[in-house]
Formats: sequence, structure tokens, C-alpha cells
Amino acid sequence: MNTTTVGVLGGGQLGRMLSEAASRLNVPVRFLDVGDNTPAKQICSVPPSVGGAQHVDGSFSDASKIRELAKQVDVLTVEIEHVDAKQLQAVLDEGLVRAVYPAPSTIALIQDKYAQKVHLRAQDLPVADFVAVDGVAGAEAAVDMFGLPLMLKARTQAYDGRGNYVIKTREDIAAGVAALGGGERTLYAEKWAPFAKEVAVMVVRADNGEVRSYTAVETIHKNSICHTVYAPLRVADATTSQRAQEIAERAVATFEGAGIFGVEMFLMPDNSVLINEIAPRPHNSGHYTIEASETSQFENHVRAVAGLPLGSTALKVPAAAMVNILGLADLAKDPDAVAKTLAPAVRSLHIPGATTHLYGKSGCRPGRKMGHVTVVGESDAQVRSRVDEILAELDIATEAAADPSKRWDAEAALSRVARPSPSPRSASDFGHPQPLVGVIMGSDSDLKVMTAAAETLKEHDVPFELTIVSAHRTPDRMREYARTAYARGVRVIIAGAGGAAHLPGMVAAQTSLPVIGVPVKGSSLDGVDSLYSIVQMPRGIPVATVAINNSMNAALLAIRILGTSIPKYAAAIEAHLREMEAGVGAKVERLAEQGWDYRV
Amino acid sequence: MNTTTVGVLGGGQLGRMLSEAASRLNVPVRFLDVGDNTPAKQICSVPPSVGGAQHVDGSFSDASKIRELAKQVDVLTVEIEHVDAKQLQAVLDEGLVRAVYPAPSTIALIQDKYAQKVHLRAQDLPVADFVAVDGVAGAEAAVDMFGLPLMLKARTQAYDGRGNYVIKTREDIAAGVAALGGGERTLYAEKWAPFAKEVAVMVVRADNGEVRSYTAVETIHKNSICHTVYAPLRVADATTSQRAQEIAERAVATFEGAGIFGVEMFLMPDNSVLINEIAPRPHNSGHYTIEASETSQFENHVRAVAGLPLGSTALKVPAAAMVNILGLADLAKDPDAVAKTLAPAVRSLHIPGATTHLYGKSGCRPGRKMGHVTVVGESDAQVRSRVDEILAELDIATEAAADPSKRWDAEAALSRVARPSPSPRSASDFGHPQPLVGVIMGSDSDLKVMTAAAETLKEHDVPFELTIVSAHRTPDRMREYARTAYARGVRVIIAGAGGAAHLPGMVAAQTSLPVIGVPVKGSSLDGVDSLYSIVQMPRGIPVATVAINNSMNAALLAIRILGTSIPKYAAAIEAHLREMEAGVGAKVERLAEQGWDYRV
Repeated sequence: MNTTTVGVLGGGQLGRMLSEAASRLNVPVRFLDVGDNTPAKQICSVPPSVGGAQHVDGSFSDASKIRELAKQVDVLTVEIEHVDAKQLQAVLDEGLVRAVYPAPSTIALIQDKYAQKVHLRAQDLPVADFVAVDGVAGAEAAVDMFGLPLMLKARTQAYDGRGNYVIKTREDIAAGVAALGGGERTLYAEKWAPFAKEVAVMVVRADNGEVRSYTAVETIHKNSICHTVYAPLRVADATTSQRAQEIAERAVATFEGAGIFGVEMFLMPDNSVLINEIAPRPHNSGHYTIEASETSQFENHVRAVAGLPLGSTALKVPAAAMVNILGLADLAKDPDAVAKTLAPAVRSLHIPGATTHLYGKSGCRPGRKMGHVTVVGESDAQVRSRVDEILAELDIATEAAADPSKRWDAEAALSRVARPSPSPRSASDFGHPQPLVGVIMGSDSDLKVMTAAAETLKEHDVPFELTIVSAHRTPDRMREYARTAYARGVRVIIAGAGGAAHLPGMVAAQTSLPVIGVPVKGSSLDGVDSLYSIVQMPRGIPVATVAINNSMNAALLAIRILGTSIPKYAAAIEAHLREMEAGVGAKVERLAEQGWDYRV
Repeated sequence: MNTTTVGVLGGGQLGRMLSEAASRLNVPVRFLDVGDNTPAKQICSVPPSVGGAQHVDGSFSDASKIRELAKQVDVLTVEIEHVDAKQLQAVLDEGLVRAVYPAPSTIALIQDKYAQKVHLRAQDLPVADFVAVDGVAGAEAAVDMFGLPLMLKARTQAYDGRGNYVIKTREDIAAGVAALGGGERTLYAEKWAPFAKEVAVMVVRADNGEVRSYTAVETIHKNSICHTVYAPLRVADATTSQRAQEIAERAVATFEGAGIFGVEMFLMPDNSVLINEIAPRPHNSGHYTIEASETSQFENHVRAVAGLPLGSTALKVPAAAMVNILGLADLAKDPDAVAKTLAPAVRSLHIPGATTHLYGKSGCRPGRKMGHVTVVGESDAQVRSRVDEILAELDIATEAAADPSKRWDAEAALSRVARPSPSPRSASDFGHPQPLVGVIMGSDSDLKVMTAAAETLKEHDVPFELTIVSAHRTPDRMREYARTAYARGVRVIIAGAGGAAHLPGMVAAQTSLPVIGVPVKGSSLDGVDSLYSIVQMPRGIPVATVAINNSMNAALLAIRILGTSIPKYAAAIEAHLREMEAGVGAKVERLAEQGWDYRV
């Protein structure tokens, strides 16, 4: 189906996952890397009987080896950006390959982070203020310009935090410049970005300029290395994801060539988004796409460089996350370094929705990327609790790895009963950190009616938040609640209100979520006033109204709604219906046994 | 993380997908098959530098080759059941491997379909009546016993329809016996099963006897070869899937050893389920699990045979399907046989949610399994329409392959504009074949009110069905409608009713789906009678009530509910809210421009 053979500079875990995608499309891939058993080469066999293009054993920075690979393939691409862009351009100019993706000029531009920033700013893309720095004097001028703290960066060869130096006081300047090599035209400084969250968007670009972005995700770094990723991004401002995707798409559209790009961004406290840096290759923040998206980042990279149509970037599951499995110990000092490192991945085999990816690396040193675990689930709450189990295992393994003399019992680890999940690590303003249902009421006087809703939700294991939001006394809070609910992951809102009972309708007017209204009976009119206020909504804005004071039914309706996409809740309602039937059955029997005139 | 090396008899596409799963778990796998470039060996490289266990070049039926593989690995398994079970038992008895999975005794039992049926019946599992047949006389006796038509089967070496012969008249008997080899003790006959659907369930079994089943799926065969698979199974009787899974689990629990099993079943017109046959290996009907389930059938097979914990079998997407890509022509006669065959897979690269799997086979003959395409989507309706696109491409390719002299233009095929989807191929009793919303009303006199719901749903591209169901005049129809809705894929029911207005509540009492009630205004009481009847439901059974006669709001509420799991519907509601805002804005401007006393 395809006549393009793809050569890849580098054959690590990114190449491995790329090879997996390519083999499904019958797209031949050949790797340039040292040895014949790198992670990528392990799953890409080229037996002598096949003939034609072979893998190349050598460094991806060796010009002659690049040529050796180029002569055998149609298109070259990279799984690492620290390659010799000039050599790639020469190979292209000599006509050894049809194309190099991304274009060597793009790789060169991105390699030099200062040039990258200049380019992005020239294209009107949002970046933190920055300035080129020459030596200590330049760094001092930058401090004068941007204040402290200041981020000092090497222009090239920087990744996973290497090449960054935080200048906290003026006394740090000389040490910082020295630590980064300190030569002329090798450094630049960035104004400190006190971000609220780190966000990333993967974008795939076809050679014809078409771009498609994946959903925005939250990335959490530890020691400047990607540690966990949550998809989709959940923030109060519903426009954030869309803005981040648009910025990422615009940025990638400015580059030449084809392939997947990782765009790392800062989400600032004022909800603005700044581009931090761009990787011209598959990216750690996009690993979740293998299990969670209609087309993975790796398959889309293969499609882009092989000239096949781009695939859908839509998320196919409600929520996903990824945890990196990084080396915890040095194999040279601890014979159990690999076992200790991989223990959390082994343990995650027990966790529903978790998929373990090991990279087949035999060596191990602290921080080395040895694997990752992707988690999918029916809701943010479920994904977080599954991730928390892995993080708890990571703590155990980290502890064990701290002592190289301590042996690791893999069998025991595999059979160990899971520790209880740690308590939620963060909380929103409104209650449960990952609620599916929001229960709100106009006043605490409604609580006696609304408690039944809370109890019913709790009984059926529904993550929910409960708070007071008054339409009349806290209109701004109501607006914020309604407008942020969807983006925070809430799927149904239950609103109780009495008298004029404006809350359900006013909330429904400001969210796309289904809103269930509970008419609360006041001291007059038997609650009919509330009922009419809630149910008689104008055309365009529905409120799902339940019986007066019947907040239990509101909760059951919310569970029915969740059951439309989460089978366990539909099953819970089925069970509840059977239970009620059995309850009546018992009463029927008692009545038959004891007669209608029986009195206790 | 794992010390078990797995040897596999056979290295075709099942081994290939198994290898993919194993490499992610760092589980070494070695294949026994002819040649060094079989589908499985292609993605499982064993370079000389690794040493240790090697692939074996030879037939999986060659006793010496089986031994050669066994000596190098810890555990043996199979990707095909037509292996020499006696040799496997010998290898096990000699202690060459720790285990053979599934147990050789299980493989032997399953190989002989008659023995398999005897075993299943002895375990009280439901199978069609059957009898052993010796020659023509035996077949005649079987016709006397079971009537016509009769299914005559070879006991062994039967798959993909081979080894089956349908005896339609007594005149067919001699030919049938002859066609199947006709010897003594080699045939049996099965009573004809006029099934309503073919159903399959994958079950994984751990060595300790733990079994986990995947959801039941519908399989559609063409020329006795699996052609398409739809997951989950959608039938009116909600208990069917559960019953099929239970039967499949019970059946697999009776076997020894570990691994994945495919259980093919007939769903009979009376909703009973019969086991047709069982495959002791990954199965075509489970390929969809790679994209659609929390753990794929292949990974669960690897886990089971390597002694790792079994993974979750839950579906992670709302709906999925699979289409086989079978050889359309013979490469010996048509040089474009491969291109023509793979064309539908190439074309499916354009379809969102479709994942193409090609098996890397260089040869091609009619019916050969060359690849498959999995489709996932947010609803049955979406998956069906995506599958219909592939089936349309399959028609084009089949037409092209019919003439070996006709050349195939791959470029043109890749850029061809998709043909319009064919019209839905089947319909339920109630309207759209894959509805997400059901609109019902007690009488056609309610239609003038309920039309707005239908129009709003149509406008927002929601697949729905609309019909009349009366609580009072057609209580049985109402019961059937309510009880089958969930299993048929409906997610929300909108029920309109006037006067006593029992329909919404009575439907809600018999389904776990959210039910939206529309009070229809009658000739007296202004619709307040209907409103009270619908909204004042007792504790336990909620109805989401909207304003009197406001069926448009009912539809918008249904779309909000769908939006909790299908992002495009949430976006549609957001857009609708913005539209209404803009509409008021326009009126504000007009009022300001023309004054309040302006009259047209």
C-alpha cells in the first residue's frame, strides 16, 4: 500500500513506538543507532532474506552513517532533535533521499532555542520576554531588564532540564554563566514565567501544510523531566484548551516539512498561554495517545512522513494519564536497579485501564526513561485514583532504590496487596477534586432537602461536590460555577431552590451541561411556586425538573445520566429498580401473611 | 520484570499481534514457523548479539522443530489449534518446558469438534443436538433424527467453513459424506441451528483457573469466514450479553491451562444461546480489543501464559467494529492482487476512528487474511456509518479485483473522494437503526407538540427514532420499548403525554435510561394535570420534566445529556447558547435603532 521506506536517526523508545505504528501500515522503517539491539531495532527485524534497506549500526551524528542510511531509504526523519542539521541538508541536496522530515532548516531553527524564540515572536506567537546573553555582563544586563529570578538558558543541546540555570540572586550570575559553558553567543535569558500549570499540545503537520492538534494536556515535571501527564486539560476557563491548541497549530504551521511536533506551554495565572519550547518529533507528553486517541502521535508521524493521509486526533476515551517509569538506581552499583525501577510498572498490571510500556533497555541509571504506564478511565476521578495507585508504588520503589545493598523481591512485589490509595492530592474550591456531579443550592436552609441527593450519590459511589451558590446573593459566584463546571469535568449539575427558585434556570443558561432542578417547598404555596419557576423555562434553555423536595430523585436522575456513558452506573440503577421491586415483594408477603388489619 | 520466555507454534498475524503485546511487557517471544520473515518474526528481532533463545525456521507440525524451540524457552503456546497435541504433551512430559498453554489435553479436546461437543454437553453447557456419524448410513440416521437441513461436519482439521457440509435434501447425503472424507469415526452431524445472530465472546483464563470475559460481540460471516464484528452486541433482550459471557466463562473454566479462548455462539430466535465452537487461541472476533478494550486479547494471552496478572477486559470506548481485509485476488494471476486487496484499508486511513492493521504478507490469494481495520466511535450510529464507508470501498475493490487484467491505480484510489455512505442496512421496529434518542408519545394527537423535539434533534444531527407507545392502550408495547431501549443503544428517552400522562413515569420505571417527560396541554386544566402527573414521581423513579408543551427543550436536554460523553453535542449546545445571545443582541440593536414605538 505504500512505497516509502523511512530512515530514522536514533533508535530509542520513540523509534520503538514509531516502528510499532509503521509495521501496522506495512511502512518499512530502518534505524541508525549504535548496536543491533536498541529499543527500536528489537521490534523491527530485517532478516537477510528480505534484502533491500538495512538498519545501520552507528551514531546518528556520524555523517558517513547518515549517508549509509540515506542511500537505502526514501525519506529521513528523526527521533531526537540533537542531530546534525547541516548533514541532513547536504544529504537532501545531494538527492540521496526524497525528503527529510521535518525540514533540516526546521530542525536547525528548533535546536537553537534562542533562534526558535526569535522565530516564534516574529510570527506573533506568545513567548516570555527574552534576550540574547553574552557572558556575565550580558547576564547582568538581563537581570536589570527582567528582574529576579531569571531563567538563564543554553541556546543549544538542552533537554530534560539540562542547559537551564535559575538565577535567584545577583550572586548566582557568574556561577550560572559558567555552569552553562559561558561562551559568546551561546546563552540567552528568559523572563521568569510564574506559570499556574504546564500544558502541552501535540500537532501533526502534513507536507502540504495541513495541521491537526491533539487535545491540550497538563504535564507535571519533576527535576525538569516529564513525570505525569493528564488528558484532557482541566481548568476553570473553558477556552484555555482551544486557545492552547490554536497557538500550537499556528506555531507548527510556521515550520517546514512534515511530522509530529510537541509544543510545551505555560498556562499563566491570568489564563494566557505562552509557548515554552517545541520538539520536532514524537514527545513524551503525547505517549498517552497510543491508548487514548483515535490515531496515536507515532502513527500520525509515520503517516505524515510517508505521505499518507493524517489520522483523527480526537480523544476516544473520557480521560487518560501517563506516568513515566524513570531509572531509580544505577545498574553499576545496584544489581536490582532494573527490577526496582520497573516495579511500579509491574504493579500497575493489576490496575484496570493501565497499560504498561517497557522499552526493552538492559541498562539503567537514575532518571533514564525505562518505560511508561498509560491509564485510561471513564472519568477524571477514576483516572486520578488509578494514577494514585501507581504513584504510591513509585514511592515504595523509590524508597527501596535508595539503598543499593537492599535486594528486591520481585515475586513479593507482584503479589503485594495494593496499599490504600492516598487521599486526593488537590482540591478545587467546590469539593471533590474530580467531581462528576455538582450539587448546589441557594441557601443552607435548603440543605435538609438536598441531603438526600448527597446521600444517594455517596451510596452509589459517585464523585460529587456540594456547595452553596445563590442566584440572587452571589450572582458572580453562580456565573463562575456554571461557566467552569464543564471544563472542570463536572457532567451533571443538581440545583435545589425554593420560592422564586431562579438558580437552576440561571445555571442552565450558562452551561452546556444538563441541569436538574429540585423545587424546594417553602413556607407558603406548598412548593408549587418553586416548581413552576424551575420547570416553566423558556424555549432554548431546559431544566430537568423533578418532584417537589425530591432531591433523591434528582440524584438518581444524575446517575441515570452518568449511566449513558459509564456502564457501572446504568447497572446500579438496574439493581436499584430490582431492589425496589423486591422491597414491595416483601411487603406483599407480609400483608398476605399477617392480613390487612395487622397492626404493629 | 519477567523471566519467562515464551515459544509460539505458528508465526502468522496472530503471532504478530501477540509479539506486539509481549514486547511492551519485555516478555521475550520466539516463533516456530517456516522462513525468517513471517508476519510475527518481522516485528520480533533476535540479533546475534542477544544470544539465548532464537526463532526456529520450520513447520509447527515438525516434532523435531517443536523440540528445538521448546529447549530454548520456558513456556510453549500456539497461535493455531491444528498442532500435534501428542508432541506437545511429550515435550511437557520430558520436562523441556515448564508448561504448555493451553494444556495439550485441551488442544486435543478442541481439535476434535465432536469430542469438544461431548465435553461441553457433559458440562451442562448449551450446544445444538449432535450425533457421531459413520459413513452414509450414519448420516442417513442423523437426518432421520434431526431432520433437514442438517449440518454435517468433519471432526478435525476444520476451520473457516472448511470441513462443514450442509445437507439440504436426502440426495445430498452421499456427496456430503464423500466431500468430508467419509471415513469411519471422522464425521458428526449437528441439528440445524436457525440462529438470529452469531455472537462471540473472548475469555482469558489464568493457570489458577481465574477467567475473565470480554463483552459479547456480533460476528458476521461471509462464505464462512469472519467478515465484520460489532462490539458491544446490541439486541433487544438486555440479559443476552450477560448470559453469553457467563456461558463462555463457564465453558473456558472447564479447560486446563492458561491463555485466551474465542467462544463462538449462536443467538437463537428464542433468545437462548448455543455454543458453536471454541478456539484455544487469540481469535479474529477479538481483534477489536486492541483499540477498544482496556487490555487487548493479545496482551491478556501473553499475561496468562507468562504468569502475569490478568488485565481488565472492560470496553474503553462506547462502540467498536472490525472489518477483515481478505485477499480479493490471486497474486499468481493478478500482479495488483495485493494493491486491490489492501485498497479498502488504505482508504480507511481517511476515516476518523479507523485503525488499519496490515499483516506484512507478501503473497495474496482469495480469502487470505491480509489485514483488518478496527473502527471506534462515540456511538453505534457513528461506528456503523464509519464501517459503511469501508464496506463501500470493499465493494469497489472487489469489483476491480474481478478482472485480473485491470490495473490498479493506488494514487487515484488514495485521493478518490469517498462515495456517499450507503443507506442503513437494517432497521429496528422503531425507526433509525442505531438511535441515541428515542422519542415516544401516547397518541398521534401529541405529534403536533412533539414535532419540535424531532426537528431539534434532526437539526443537531442526533440519530433518533420516533414512534407511538401508549401506556394505557399498548402496555405490552410500552414494556417492550422501555426494557429493550438500553440494550438497543438508546441513551435518552423523550416521552410526551397529556392528561393523566402516565407514559414517562411508566417508562422510567422499566429502564435505567434517563427519561425526559413533556407535559402535553389538553383541552382542560391548561396542561397542569399532565405536568403534575409527570413531575410528581415517587422516590426512586425520576422523570426529567420540562415545561408544558415544550418538546424543543426536551430535545435540547437530551442533547445536553449526550454531550456529557460526546463532546460534539456539548459544543453544539454551547453554540446554541451563543446563537440565542446573538439573536437577542440583534433585537437590542433594532430596538435602539427604530425605537420602542416602531411598528412594521
